[in-house]
Amino acid sequence: MSTSLRSEAARAATPVGNVFDANCSARHALELISGKWAMLILPALREGPMRNAGLLRKIGGISQKVLTETLRDLERNGLVIREDRRTMPLHVEYRLSALGRSLSDALVVLDRWAEQHFPALDAARERYDALIRRARVE
Amino acid sequence: MSTSLRSEAARAATPVGNVFDANCSARHALELISGKWAMLILPALREGPMRNAGLLRKIGGISQKVLTETLRDLERNGLVIREDRRTMPLHVEYRLSALGRSLSDALVVLDRWAEQHFPALDAARERYDALIRRARVE
Repeated sequence: MSTSLRSEAARAATPVGNVFDANCSARHALELISGKWAMLILPALREGPMRNAGLLRKIGGISQKVLTETLRDLERNGLVIREDRRTMPLHVEYRLSALGRSLSDALVVLDRWAEQHFPALDAARERYDALIRRARVE
Repeated sequence: MSTSLRSEAARAATPVGNVFDANCSARHALELISGKWAMLILPALREGPMRNAGLLRKIGGISQKVLTETLRDLERNGLVIREDRRTMPLHVEYRLSALGRSLSDALVVLDRWAEQHFPALDAARERYDALIRRARVE
């Protein structure tokens, strides 16, 4: 681990922000990481570097435009590293930075939660909507 | 723990969905729980039941309209319980369901991540933007 990574880790050990404060930079970080696309792209890259086409295949429903924009945003914030091998044909890969990997640990937990609990959410919605319908009839 | 909660927990032990599949209900669950407002409201309710005014105070930058809509959506999906004590003056409280509490465990990890790591994201953005500016000048 480089000195700068170590000092970054030391700083990171103490929470310094407050996501409940709309003017705190921590809120901006939360906004970046809370969109569904970041929640799919970062976990997808845990298995190893991927190219644009692979990400498009893996992440159902994402458009090329949104993928490009989200990857650039993640790169700009130091979460994803874009590697251009400068070969012909072009070979550009995306991989997680150390920071992105630590975030992906937390995101994967959320993805698993959604995959495990969606039947309970579906059932709750059905119950709620049935109650609303009944209340309207009465 | 009630029988229905036990069987729900048993079902939940096996992942049954795939968030990468745009047509899977797990993706819809992820879309509901992503979004910064759910990520702030559910963790805010971990300390105990709260009323509308308390949530408005706690969560900087949220409007009454968005708070109302998000609370209704969370209630509809079985994550938040709305308790109307039917007293005068009106006393309506919101609290986490068991399902909402289990989700909030995962969301709090993300909030803490944002609060700890936002300086690293800020620094990365500055580096990236400086590089872009330099590339434009050259």
